[in-house]
This record gives sequence, C-alpha cells and structure tokens, in this order.
Amino acid sequence: MVVSATPNTEQIVSEYLFVGKNVPRIDAREKVAGEAIFTTDIMLPGMLIGKIKRSPLPFARILSINTDKASRLPGIKTVITAQNIIQFAYGPIIADELPLADKYARYVCDGVAAVAAVDEDTAEEALDLINVEYEELTPVLDPEKAMEPGAPVVHPELAEVKQNIVHHIEFARGEGEAAFNHADLIMEDRFVTPPQHHAYLETQACVAQWHTSSDKLTMHLSHQAPFKVRIQLARALGISESQIRMIQPFIGGGFGGKVEMQSHLPVAAFLSRKTGRPVKIVYTREEDITAGRPRMTEIIDLKMGFKKDGTMVAKSAVVTADAGAYCGPAPVIVGVSVIRPDCVYRLPNVKVVANVVYTNKIPRTAFRGYGNTEMAWAMESMIDMAAYRLGIDPIELRLKNCSQKGDVTVHGWILNSCGLSDCIKLAADKSDWKNKKQKREKTHGIGVACQVHVSGNRAVHPLYEGSAAMVNIDRDGKAKVINGESEMGQGMLTVYLQIAAEELGMDIKDIDVLPFVDTAISPFGMGTYGSRGTLVGGNAVRLAARDAKGQLLRHAAEKLGIGVDDLEIKKSKFYAKGLLKELATVPEIAYDTVLRKLGGAPITGRGEYTVPDYVVYPDKNIYGNYSVGYAFSAQIAEVQVDPETGKVKVLNIWVGEDIGKAINPKMCEGQIEGGVAQGMGFALGENYYWDKGKILNSRFADYKIPLSGDMPKIHTILVESIEPGGPFGAKSVGEAAMNPTAVAIANAVYDAVGVRITDLPATSEKVYNRIKSL
Amino acid sequence: MVVSATPNTEQIVSEYLFVGKNVPRIDAREKVAGEAIFTTDIMLPGMLIGKIKRSPLPFARILSINTDKASRLPGIKTVITAQNIIQFAYGPIIADELPLADKYARYVCDGVAAVAAVDEDTAEEALDLINVEYEELTPVLDPEKAMEPGAPVVHPELAEVKQNIVHHIEFARGEGEAAFNHADLIMEDRFVTPPQHHAYLETQACVAQWHTSSDKLTMHLSHQAPFKVRIQLARALGISESQIRMIQPFIGGGFGGKVEMQSHLPVAAFLSRKTGRPVKIVYTREEDITAGRPRMTEIIDLKMGFKKDGTMVAKSAVVTADAGAYCGPAPVIVGVSVIRPDCVYRLPNVKVVANVVYTNKIPRTAFRGYGNTEMAWAMESMIDMAAYRLGIDPIELRLKNCSQKGDVTVHGWILNSCGLSDCIKLAADKSDWKNKKQKREKTHGIGVACQVHVSGNRAVHPLYEGSAAMVNIDRDGKAKVINGESEMGQGMLTVYLQIAAEELGMDIKDIDVLPFVDTAISPFGMGTYGSRGTLVGGNAVRLAARDAKGQLLRHAAEKLGIGVDDLEIKKSKFYAKGLLKELATVPEIAYDTVLRKLGGAPITGRGEYTVPDYVVYPDKNIYGNYSVGYAFSAQIAEVQVDPETGKVKVLNIWVGEDIGKAINPKMCEGQIEGGVAQGMGFALGENYYWDKGKILNSRFADYKIPLSGDMPKIHTILVESIEPGGPFGAKSVGEAAMNPTAVAIANAVYDAVGVRITDLPATSEKVYNRIKSL
Repeated sequence: MVVSATPNTEQIVSEYLFVGKNVPRIDAREKVAGEAIFTTDIMLPGMLIGKIKRSPLPFARILSINTDKASRLPGIKTVITAQNIIQFAYGPIIADELPLADKYARYVCDGVAAVAAVDEDTAEEALDLINVEYEELTPVLDPEKAMEPGAPVVHPELAEVKQNIVHHIEFARGEGEAAFNHADLIMEDRFVTPPQHHAYLETQACVAQWHTSSDKLTMHLSHQAPFKVRIQLARALGISESQIRMIQPFIGGGFGGKVEMQSHLPVAAFLSRKTGRPVKIVYTREEDITAGRPRMTEIIDLKMGFKKDGTMVAKSAVVTADAGAYCGPAPVIVGVSVIRPDCVYRLPNVKVVANVVYTNKIPRTAFRGYGNTEMAWAMESMIDMAAYRLGIDPIELRLKNCSQKGDVTVHGWILNSCGLSDCIKLAADKSDWKNKKQKREKTHGIGVACQVHVSGNRAVHPLYEGSAAMVNIDRDGKAKVINGESEMGQGMLTVYLQIAAEELGMDIKDIDVLPFVDTAISPFGMGTYGSRGTLVGGNAVRLAARDAKGQLLRHAAEKLGIGVDDLEIKKSKFYAKGLLKELATVPEIAYDTVLRKLGGAPITGRGEYTVPDYVVYPDKNIYGNYSVGYAFSAQIAEVQVDPETGKVKVLNIWVGEDIGKAINPKMCEGQIEGGVAQGMGFALGENYYWDKGKILNSRFADYKIPLSGDMPKIHTILVESIEPGGPFGAKSVGEAAMNPTAVAIANAVYDAVGVRITDLPATSEKVYNRIKSL
Repeated sequence: MVVSATPNTEQIVSEYLFVGKNVPRIDAREKVAGEAIFTTDIMLPGMLIGKIKRSPLPFARILSINTDKASRLPGIKTVITAQNIIQFAYGPIIADELPLADKYARYVCDGVAAVAAVDEDTAEEALDLINVEYEELTPVLDPEKAMEPGAPVVHPELAEVKQNIVHHIEFARGEGEAAFNHADLIMEDRFVTPPQHHAYLETQACVAQWHTSSDKLTMHLSHQAPFKVRIQLARALGISESQIRMIQPFIGGGFGGKVEMQSHLPVAAFLSRKTGRPVKIVYTREEDITAGRPRMTEIIDLKMGFKKDGTMVAKSAVVTADAGAYCGPAPVIVGVSVIRPDCVYRLPNVKVVANVVYTNKIPRTAFRGYGNTEMAWAMESMIDMAAYRLGIDPIELRLKNCSQKGDVTVHGWILNSCGLSDCIKLAADKSDWKNKKQKREKTHGIGVACQVHVSGNRAVHPLYEGSAAMVNIDRDGKAKVINGESEMGQGMLTVYLQIAAEELGMDIKDIDVLPFVDTAISPFGMGTYGSRGTLVGGNAVRLAARDAKGQLLRHAAEKLGIGVDDLEIKKSKFYAKGLLKELATVPEIAYDTVLRKLGGAPITGRGEYTVPDYVVYPDKNIYGNYSVGYAFSAQIAEVQVDPETGKVKVLNIWVGEDIGKAINPKMCEGQIEGGVAQGMGFALGENYYWDKGKILNSRFADYKIPLSGDMPKIHTILVESIEPGGPFGAKSVGEAAMNPTAVAIANAVYDAVGVRITDLPATSEKVYNRIKSL
C-alpha cells in the first residue's frame, strides 16, 4: 500500500510513467538463471587459491612462525607472514591493524600467515604445516572489565589508548542531565545487544592480480564500496590509489559487511605480488562467521525522563561498545547509536557518554542499521516501559512526541520531510491496534516501535559526499546508465533505470543500467552504505539523464528549426509543447547527432551530484544535519508466545515507512521484508556463543537465522512524504526497515506475557525462564 | 633520424616535453612479464570449447549432415548446423555469407557445423563424428575463368551477380585512355600478387557468453574494431547492437586480419546460446591459415604512358581481384588499389576497370596496406621499367613527378602536407644511391619505390568518421586516458599517453592509458585500421585532454583569484603566464575540485573528434578527399642475389617516411621495421600453395615468413611535414611503411641480375629459373 503523507502540499498527483511503478528487477532473470558472474566465479590464468592461517588463542605473543614444511609442500607457491612482507597499518579511523599480525595475535582467528597454492586442498594442508609458537597471554573478553585498571592491554603499542578505550564520546544538548529535574517519571535500565552475522549468500571474496611489471594491482571483489575501500587497501599495501583497479561484479549480498576492508584483500594482494600470479581468497562460511566481522555489540545504560502526560523530557545514556581486537568503524557506529534514535522524537535534552573498547574478541563492522538498531532497541523498549508506567497507550505516547516536518532535531537534523505520525497512525489502523490491545487473548501480544534513518550521510570526508553518473544515448536511441555505486542485491539498478527513464522521457526497454563497477572507468561512487543508493546515487543518475535529455532537446530543436524551450520528449518522441503531433523520435535525433556531430560517439550526459550546503560534516560533538533527508518507520508486531516452551511466534508485522517516494513500491516492500527478517533474527535467535573468546556456533546449523517458514505476514504501508532533496521525492528504505523490528517484537512479547527482555536475543529458553520467574 | 620537411613554414622549433620523445611503451613490461591478459587467457565459469567442422571440398552441395554420433559423445554439449540455428546473412558490403553454410560449401574449409564440448580433445573428436553428405560440384578456382560464360557459379542464389562478378569499378579521370596519345613511351605488362597470411602471434579468438535470461551477449574478442564488428555480429545473429557487449583485452597482433567479422564470432555466440554456457573458440594456426582470411590477390594489367623527359602522362589498369568464396571487404580493397598509388605522383589522366570476382577459394580480408600494396607493386615496377627504358635514373624520374604540398591529386586528395620529395632525396643521399648505381658489383643491386597512405579514411559510413576519448583527473592529480580504439601491438597507448601529457602539461608518470575496450563503457572508437589510430584517435585524446585542462585552469583560476587566461600549466604546476613562481600544483587543484565541487567524481575531459568538412565520403567513382592527411614513404632496397641459387639477400633498406610528426620516433621506427619485414615476406617468400583449392602450406614450417636472421639493416629517416589536421602535426606510419618494400626489393633484384619479377613472391626458385632463361 502506498499513501501520501499528510499534510503534504508538495504531493503532486502522479503523472509519472515509470517512477512509482513495479518495474521488475532488471537483474532478476540473470541471477535466477545462474548466468550472473560473481567474484567467486572469476578465474584467471595461473590463478592460485589463498588461505589464511589463524590464531587459536584470543591473546598471545607470536614468538616464531616456522613455514619450512608448508613451503616445501608440492603445490604451495608461497607462504607469507608479517616477517617476509612489508605491510602498513590501516583502519578506517585508527591504523591499528596489519594484514597479518606481527607481534600479537589479538583474537581467536586473527590472521598470522597465509599461503597460495594450486588448489584449495593443498592450501588447507599447508596451513596445518605452519608451526606458530605462541606465548599465551591473559585475554580480556568483557568490555567493562577491559576498562578497569590493570586489565590486559589489547594494543600495548598504542600509547594514546588508555585502559583499552579507543574512542570516547561525551556531550550534552539542551540542559543535559539537569533536565531530569523537570521529569515526573525517570526510567533507568541496562540493555545489551548481541553481535550478528550478515549471512550474505556470498561470503567475503576477492581475486587479486598484482602486475609485478607495472606495480599495479587489479582486484575483483565482492564489495559495496570499491572506490572507498581502495583508499584503505592502498594504505595497507603502501602504494597509491591510482595503482589499484577495483572491479566489482555482481555481489551476493552485503548488509554492511562489505563496506570496510577486511584483511583478505591485502593478503590476497601480497600473495599475488609474491607469486606473480592471480590469487583468489573466498572465505568459508565458518571463516566468515569467525574471522569476518559481525555487528557491533553494545551495553547501554539508559535513563529517560517523562512528564506525566507523556512528554519526553530528557535522555541520558552511557554506552560501552565492544570493538573487539581492532577498532574498525566502531567509533562511527557508536556515534550513530548515540544520535539517531533521539531524532525520532521532539526530545530537547540529551546527555551521552560512550566508550569504544578493545577486547580480545572478533572485531566488528557495519551492519544494516549501523548502531541505530542497537540504541533503537534500548530507547524504544524504555518508551514502551514508560507508556505502561504512565498508563498511556504506546501509540499515543509516540504520536505525542514524534518529530514533524519542519523540525530541527536536538542533534541539528533538518527534517524537510517527515511522515512519521502518518506511519504510526496507519500502522495502528491497519493492525487494528486499539481492538487488539483491548481484547487480547493471554499469550497474544502487540507492540510498536519507531525509527529514523539517514539517506546517505556526509560522514566519511569533511569536504564531500557525492556520486557521479553517465547516461549515454547511442545512435540507435538506446540509453545506458553508468555509475559507480554498487548493486548488492537491493535493487538499485532498477531504481536507477526508473529514474533515468522518467527523467529522459524514454521507455525503460530502451535503457540499460550497467551492473558492475570498475574503478578504472566507472564514474565515481562512494558506495552503497548509509542508505545512500537512492538519494545520493539516484540524484546523480537523474542529473546525468537531465544533461543527456538537454542535449537531445538542443540537437532536436536545431534540426527541427524550433525553439528548444518549445520542445518536449514523451515516450521517446519529440513534441512541440502542448501539441499532439510527434515531430521526431529519439532514435532519429540520436542517430543524426551521433553520426553528424559526434563522430560516432554517443550523446553523453553527466551528473556529478554533491549534497547541498545545508548538509554538513558533523562537528566534533556529532552535531549537524548530515543527510539530505531522513526515512522514518513505525512497526507493529503481533506475537503469540508459547508459555510451555517460551517460543515466540511472530504472526504479523505492520510497517508504516516514510520512504519519501516509492520509486518502485514492490522493491520497497522487498527491502522492508528483508529488513524485518534480519530484525527478527536479531530479536529472537541470532547470537554468538563463546568459549574463552572462541565462537562456538560458526555454521548455519547452529547460527540460526529466520527461515521462510518462520516469517510472519508483513503488511507494508509506504508513506510518501516527498523529500524536496530526493530524486522524485525519494529518501531511503533498507536500513530504516530493519531498525524497529526487534524492539516491536520485544514490546509485543511484554504485552503478551509480561516479560521484558533487555538482553537480546529473546530465545525460547530465555523467554521460558523469565516467564517461570515472573 | 628525424628531419623536417622543406619548405615547411609551419615547423615550430620543438619545445615539446613529451611529443617527439622516445617514451618507452607503457605495455611493454606487462607483456614481456607474461602478465597481460589476452582473449585466449579468458576463462569463465562452465566455459566450453567450440570447434568448427569444415568442408574438405572447394564446391559442393550439402545434401545432409548427420550429427547423431557427435551429439552422443560424452562431453559434447551441442552440435549446431544451419538446420538448427536461425542465422542471418551478413557481410561488410554484400550479405552473402552465413555463420554456417546451409546449401553449399563454397571453399575448402567453409564451416558447415560446429560443436561445443567440455574440452578441446572432445570437440575435435566430435568433429570427426559429424557425417556430412556432399554432392561434389565443379569448382572455379581462377578468377579470370570465373568471369567466362558457362563457368561454375559460386553464389547461384545471388541473381544480381553475373558471371561471378560481385563488384565492378570503372571510371576515367582527365582524358582517360585518350591521354596515351600524348605519350612518348607506353609500357604494358601484367602483374600478379599473392595472398598473405597475417601471421599475428595470437590467432583468431573469442569467448562468447549468451545471457539467455536477458537475451544479451557478452563477447571477449581479439579484434581491432570491437565497436565496428558489433554491427556485423548483430546482423548475423538477428539481434540489435545494444544487446551485445564487446570486451577487447590485449591483442596479439592484427595487421588488418581482425578488422572484419570472421565466422567464429557468430558461431561461438550460437553455441553459447544453445548451451547456456560460455564458449571459447581459438583457431589453431592451421585453421587460421586455411579458414582465416588472408590478403586479397589481384591480377593487374597495367599500362602507363610517359613523355621522353619522364613526365607521367597516363595510367590505365584492368584489375581482376579474387575475392574467394565470399565478398567480404574486397570491393573496398580494390577501390583502394585503383586510387591510392596514383596519388603519389602528379598523374593527370587515369582509367580504371576492375572486377571483384568470386571463386571457390578462401575468402579475403584487410591486410596492412589494404590494396595499396598490390597496386604499388605493379605501378612502381612499371615506373622502374620506364626509367630504364627512358635512360632516366629511377630516383630522378620519381622526383620529377612526385606530388607536392598543396596539390590536389587526380582523385581529389588534398595534400595539406607532403614531404615526399624529401623522403626520396634523403633516402637516396643516405643510401649513397648515385655511387651504388654507378659502381655496383654484378649480382648487387639497388632499387627504389614510393608510396602514399591515408591517416584514417572516411570510407565506412557516409555520415561520419570519428573517435571519442575521456581524460579523467582524479583527486590525487593523476590522469587517466580512456578511449575506444584498439591497441593491437602498434604502440597506440603510448602515443596517446604522450599526446595527453603534452596537452595537459602533466608528466607522463602521472598519466595512465587504459589498455582495453569495452563497448558497454568505453568512449566510442571506430577501431584501429586505415592507419587512423594516431590522427583520428589521437585528435580525440587531445581534445579530451584540452577539455580537462580547461576545467583545471578554470578551477585553479577561481581558487587562486586570477584570470583564467593568465594561467598556464607546466609540469603539473600552475603559473601566472610569464612568471616563474608556481602558484599551485595539479594535485592540489584536483583534490579541491574533486572533493568540493564534484562530490568525489574526477574532473572529466571529453573529446569527440570528427573529421573536418574538407574530408568527404568518396563519391561513386571513389573521387574525393577522404583522409585528413596522407603519409608518404620512399624506400630504397639494396640486395645481393646469388645466381647459383636465386636467393635474394636484402642487405639494407633505407626508409624515408613522411609521418607528419613523430610523436614517438622509436615507435615509428618499430612500425617501419615491422612494415618492412612484412613487405619482405610479401616480396620474397610468402604465398599459398594449392591443390584443387586446398591450401597445402598451412603451418609456419612451410608458410615462410622472414626470420630475424633474414632481416636487413633498416635505416629510418622520419620526415616531419607537420600536418595541420594531425595531433601535433602527426599523420600515420604503419601501413605506409609496408607498401613500397616489396617493389623496392624487386626493383633492386632487376638492378642486380636483370630479372624483372612481375609475379610475387620472388622465390629463390623463380629468380634462379629466370636468371637461367635470360
């Protein structure tokens, strides 16, 4: 269902031909037919298989590595360690990581050596023949203990990191903590979030080919941000970005896990440099779960203050985030945690203290929601708790406080569009909230949660945030959209197709969108993360299409002897404005232009989109409007809890999501369904089980993600608030869809059986035990 | 040696930093190290090997093809014939060819069926299991007999082709034949030229991947003109060009043999469509010699008239060209034969009759020189004969008649630059011609020949002839040149590097040139043939660099607060014109521009070059100035003939070549040396030996090309006439270098032993026999 947000004066009765239509995904058939080529499919002449030897200990000094036996194994082409390669420390925030550990292994599965072999079996065999002598050290596995004086120090070489605290955030807005004096009700609780594996179908994969003759590297990789990761890779290898060519074919899912650099990229490059042959590394599922990088975990001590009438007064949070053994993007993720959920509401006073802490556990990275999911879980749980304490319906409490169009939030976000209250009301209506709250059976519950998310964020670089695209129109009148953002399965290519078709006035069947990124030749794209694909990348595509259309119109005007302002293109035909008779077709004008004027070259439209000036790089207190537009979501979950087993069955999820404008409603629904699925996994089952820092459940047999049979009926309501800065009013959809699911489910569980889960996941065992202890 | 043509007022004392310098080839190290990837290296998931079953008969009706046994062979995935695929007739001039023959096999090795198998052995085995029932027909193997009434008809279905004559050319200029009345000396003779195999290191090769889901085709191919051949391929497959993506990696040589479409391209596509898997076809050397396409052969009945003082009065030629079984580009090649060599001289009267004839022999295609080599052989032989008859030194005779700057030739060519007389004089001086003519030993001889060639020709399409390029400057100030022309080993990438560096004011170490073409994303290029790479493609690169530089200057001017016209770039630094202090560097301005203005996208310069209006598509009598500039060459050969064996030893070749401007003198020399080698092969040994239409010498063991030990000392004199329409004055080099070699050698043989060879090649056996019969 697609509805307009109210009041919404910008809403134009849609005369769009392609925007807003359920155009089938352009890469669906190719993928279903098995014809799409992924990184794992790449084969190059003389290609070797690379494998990484990993530490069995959470913390150890590496005394020696003996590679003699491994090197002598027939079929082994090289064995590398920190001793025989020159590597450079890297990291998106802090350069604390090496491709291969040198002095210390800092977590179970930290890479200490790597081999390149003629086949996988030989590579595996060689790993066993590498003899590493460790001095076992006492690990620190708990982030709170890690901050205590005398705790083991994960990075002794980083003098500036005190007590393992690699990043500290502290600020107050409004009256800060003092504002609690005005509150009638103060709630305090601790919330704990689990890690989560991305569970993409395609594990981390790359093929590196070092051209030793020219000292250049070509890398095929499964990655969401080939241009961005090139910066990191260049750093780790000690070469310049322009020496690296990244080629991204089809991607088998990302969900944030393929935004930063993981060490297989530089390791494959080093193995290729040593052997002079291409080297492929593809993680096994076990390796991806134990040495890939999962979602950040947080311990959140949250305090919120409310007036009797439900008005939110203040929030204060102390966050302890476990970065694991290397910092990665953890500070930015925690920066998101402590900001975003506040912007859902008109919350005037905020105080935050957050520490990002090293432990001897697996390092973390981006995951759909990026810190927002974690804090949303805490805050929306607490708001629900407050509603029950205040005797106010949870829906009403949220409607009373929720942000509105025109607001500037406590963190400086400018809401030029906001359909949140519509999202809440519509989800409540459609779910029959009121009746279900009143007439519910025992063990049957309903819960609500809200969320906001960015649509791209100006957070990577102080100077810029942008995307570029080209739209080429060839002599046959066919158009091609070329850009540098990554289709990772989310449907971006189809969205760009629709945007280009609408802007050009051409039919989608006459337009193609290239499915790959090649940093040597593709227009620049920062990558698909931060829900930026549609708004940032889409604006670039739209600008390129506009440029191409402008050229078409100018050429046609000249040829037809008519003023360019009097011409328009509809369905690939030129008309004098307001007249019905077609004057020429796009293929006719394209053919003439290409051949007579451009020497055979296509008409090339270019779009270089950069966010407007009201979108800023946030200041040191993370204050500032760093996205063009913000997507809102309200989700209502209806559950049935079996008190005999503790099993939570999710029956229905209603999602009201303000996506600005649904370029492709069916795909928005698809994104929402995917987000709900991952949110459900986060709520009910996904977790890592540890034994002294070692992850025990490293296969899908024991790392449980929701299966299709587990899924509830999902009812989607797309609220179109029409964001002025978005292409055709569009904002984003994918991450906003994930953030509220887990907490809506948890709130419904409370509604059903009175059990308040504060530490995810709400496994059957946990729910059963808590019911019993009520 | 590089010299300026005289008189030459445009010649500027060179202040170039990169143009005119011997920059090392940018792809040399990669190729020498074995790291460059060629089509034969491409592997794709599930890839099959394709092979073509070929006719053993020169002419036969195909009665039936039984593929049952072959289809049942384990490992065979499909067997295709004309009966189970839908194919369309194609051809660059006449659509007379099918990917697989249907009713008739028209030459020995005509393809009649094809298989795709899991490996090469299985494919070969399957070919033997295909049972083709033929009705043997009487072939016609001689082009002159083919024109006689009652001769077998090669293409019975082409009603418009009478007596196998597929193309007829006939025109006269000036007084035509009547002009012979003014001549004091009329010479007449018949000249016959042999076929020639291109002998590229990499045989014909492609990998086709039909995406059955989207009905699109991706093809990796070893080809000189991926954009151009796409048109032909689309026709043969019955799909649109935009359904095809051509990717051209490194090419192991072309020499014209990879300009047109050969049938392995559509056959591979059909095999892939049938199997749903990628299919690779790589010709064996034998297959390439017998079923690839060699140089056109011509029988030339030539008549030339001279005044006593050596003035050329008239030329009349009757040409019979053997197209073989399919027409291919033969009409255009013969069109070149009957035009180009005339433009070397101020020849006022010309008459031409030419027939392109079908025979039941191997079809022909482009080969370096493209018909020019053949007629040059005849005319320069006859001019030599006339010189001896008139008692005029062959050098003097040529100097008396040769074209000059400012001339419009008898065929309408406009010579805006011409250094031919310098070429002749300098070659004569350096070779010590006068002394060697006077004091020569017996069996020692010296001979001269001249030539002219185009630098791109507006002959493919009436509306256009052009090329496009992009020059991207990234945030680190590094530039990338991207274009759609093909590096086939000739050094084009390095020429583009130098042109871009010079135009940008940047160092070559800061510039890269992409070595591949991908029709999905590369700027348009017509391809590298007709010696168009430097002038046409180079102009596009220069325009793109100029555009990028203009943008750099504008951004710098704005940032520095200085007028754009007062700024200049030298060695990647900005200066106020005339001042020595640098104001900023290219990396500084690029960084700022890319990040602050372009949202991260590089500065993108575009160049769409199309030839100026004075370059026209020739009229139906092939009249008109169809190239921007023309390269001239004079070659002098010094030989020693062993009268006991007839063996011709070439001792020295002096080449004076007007290349306009040597962008890279060493590479010009390399091109000239390669051209001379191929010309020597054409002169002395390369030929096909036949048995009833079957080629007997299909291996390098018996198809003899010159070896390094056979090569003479080559003395190169590069004459810089500075062509106003060329990039930095450059014209072309590769084809002009080949055309005069064979005839210079033949003229030297006559000078040495008095034997006039009129039918190439001048094998030892032939020379020996003619000496004996003197």
